[in-house]
Amino acid sequence: MPEEHFHLIKTSNAARAGELYTPHGTVPTPVFLPVGSQATVKTLTPQDVKDVGFNMVLANTYHLYLRPGIDIIEKMGGLHRFMAWDGAMLTDSGGYQVFSLAPLCRIKDDGVAFRSHIDGSEHFLTPELAVKYQESLGADVMMVLDECTAYGDSHEKVRKAVERTHRWAERCLKAQKRKDQALYAIVQGGIFPELRRQSAEYLTALDFPGYAIGGLSVGEPKEMTFAMVEETSALLPVKKPRYLMGVGSPEDIVEAVARGIDIFDSALPTRVARNGALFTSKGRINIRKAAYRKVDAPLDPDCDCYTCRTFSAAYLSHLFRSDELLGLRLATVHNLRFIANLMGKIRNSILDGTFSAFREDFLSSYKTTDEKTRVEQKGRWLRSTPRGL
Amino acid sequence: MPEEHFHLIKTSNAARAGELYTPHGTVPTPVFLPVGSQATVKTLTPQDVKDVGFNMVLANTYHLYLRPGIDIIEKMGGLHRFMAWDGAMLTDSGGYQVFSLAPLCRIKDDGVAFRSHIDGSEHFLTPELAVKYQESLGADVMMVLDECTAYGDSHEKVRKAVERTHRWAERCLKAQKRKDQALYAIVQGGIFPELRRQSAEYLTALDFPGYAIGGLSVGEPKEMTFAMVEETSALLPVKKPRYLMGVGSPEDIVEAVARGIDIFDSALPTRVARNGALFTSKGRINIRKAAYRKVDAPLDPDCDCYTCRTFSAAYLSHLFRSDELLGLRLATVHNLRFIANLMGKIRNSILDGTFSAFREDFLSSYKTTDEKTRVEQKGRWLRSTPRGL
Repeated sequence: MPEEHFHLIKTSNAARAGELYTPHGTVPTPVFLPVGSQATVKTLTPQDVKDVGFNMVLANTYHLYLRPGIDIIEKMGGLHRFMAWDGAMLTDSGGYQVFSLAPLCRIKDDGVAFRSHIDGSEHFLTPELAVKYQESLGADVMMVLDECTAYGDSHEKVRKAVERTHRWAERCLKAQKRKDQALYAIVQGGIFPELRRQSAEYLTALDFPGYAIGGLSVGEPKEMTFAMVEETSALLPVKKPRYLMGVGSPEDIVEAVARGIDIFDSALPTRVARNGALFTSKGRINIRKAAYRKVDAPLDPDCDCYTCRTFSAAYLSHLFRSDELLGLRLATVHNLRFIANLMGKIRNSILDGTFSAFREDFLSSYKTTDEKTRVEQKGRWLRSTPRGL
Repeated sequence: MPEEHFHLIKTSNAARAGELYTPHGTVPTPVFLPVGSQATVKTLTPQDVKDVGFNMVLANTYHLYLRPGIDIIEKMGGLHRFMAWDGAMLTDSGGYQVFSLAPLCRIKDDGVAFRSHIDGSEHFLTPELAVKYQESLGADVMMVLDECTAYGDSHEKVRKAVERTHRWAERCLKAQKRKDQALYAIVQGGIFPELRRQSAEYLTALDFPGYAIGGLSVGEPKEMTFAMVEETSALLPVKKPRYLMGVGSPEDIVEAVARGIDIFDSALPTRVARNGALFTSKGRINIRKAAYRKVDAPLDPDCDCYTCRTFSAAYLSHLFRSDELLGLRLATVHNLRFIANLMGKIRNSILDGTFSAFREDFLSSYKTTDEKTRVEQKGRWLRSTPRGL
């Protein structure tokens, strides 16, 4: 890990602007990480990802462990070289995916047994292996193995998961050999404030270089999500980066920044793009709607992305109606550019002290007009909305 | 049409090197046109297509008539502007697609009735409408409406189709209003040399600016295809460009250039790319094979495409095994770059008088190693291998 991993530059109430330092470059925060679970941000080349405005991405240990295999990536010189990405990178530990994607997952104190969702083969993941795999992958930020709970789980069940998560976090810390990678802890506790507090306190004492908030946006009402983010975030060390896993939508990012979050990742912007749901300055629209068939203007005249600079909404509409692969790519470019621009505006407004006004402005003008697609944004039970897919 | 549409620069036996002049630039020949049936070369942006090395593409009137509709494209300022392509463009008339894709197609002297393969709606296409639609689309080269026959059709059936194709060609010529577009005739005649000769003679007398050879590579044995190409090509006017529709594979292109063809189009390079079949200097391989899983080197070390300059064969293999969309794009870039390089080598060798040696060299080193995918290259009955899909 670099000497200083995170530097807090300015705050605006709870909102924070800072910088992450990694072996693959400096990352301004608040930052959103495009999701590249399988060593690719779907439809985009590494150059596209940079051109769109990102210099840090997320990949998933679970997916890469199953396919192509950690050994192959290691032989290829690590994940950066394998996927030709020279920017910063974070890998998730695989914990969440084992619980949300893998069939027949059985948890023990030692680790978690699961079957591959690809071929049904049996596997066993421990905190030590999660760290070992992530060291082989070589990402700049690694995550501890945690036990994830679901919305609706009892206090008792969540309490036990929190305690196991703590024991596992210690084991991960102990297992870490490479020192150029930052290992983040994950605060669990479901929707129970006192468990969240216990978790934050316990993990803070272990002095990790960064802290994630896990187990949210998994089906609980949105107000509950933000209440938990607010309470948990306030308990985390000021000088360490805070990462809200699996969030999210433009409006949720703004709300979470207002509660002190520095790092985000979510497959939502890219996944909904492939369904034709596109972010615009006035809110989210669906390009498949008949209204766009004849629009001889960019989808969002305020957008500076390649898609909006080059094509009309009518052309995008045509690509989606014709099931053309280029449509998925152009929509991905657009939504990610929207998020990159959003993160830039958020950060600038924190730096010049106008974040509250920006937040109010943004949330009043940004509407998710298509109610049908709105549903996708709401968390449901884990299995149906896996993080990072 | 520009004053001079085609200039023959050099010949090497039957092979020809020349230039096509179009309102959207000069195109060196022999040339291959990437297929963008639905106003997009699948997975690629217009910039990608240029970067890969092409300045002329093909689009299909049939597809665009059905979706988004000719009226919409016309309102958007024509097909060039709609798809943001400023290079040269050829549109097929829709004849072949009506016969190969549309259900319940019924041919009359006036035109052809068919149902949409998308929604079953009824339509009627005439030679006059085919020209009108193509004038609205605004491509640099248009094709006449022709009647296509299949391998196995009787002499009598093919003879009647040839005669109807001739009448329709005259009607297309008469219907043409815009003079900045070159309208090409299509020589038919199946596998019957005397019908091919009659067709070539009849259409040559009408003095079209270019001539296509249609109705080949639809199931007949390869030797028969090339015998027909050789005979027909020799009957066409020396000073006019010759276009072999729906061909092809690298080896077929080389063989057809040797028989005097100047223009090619085929969905094969891009379609097989999406199946993981990739052209290399040693022949065609399939990236899905297990052998590529651990190859820490470019797929083809002799290739200068973005894919080979950036990624290992192992990474490409991973993308295909993981059903990642980026794989389809990277494979498309690779195969099209291979064809662009091939066309460049062919042309240079004609210009410096070494084409025969190049042809011999190429055909002896280029092997299609994967027999299973080899089948795709062989024409079958029309419906199963539509041109331009």
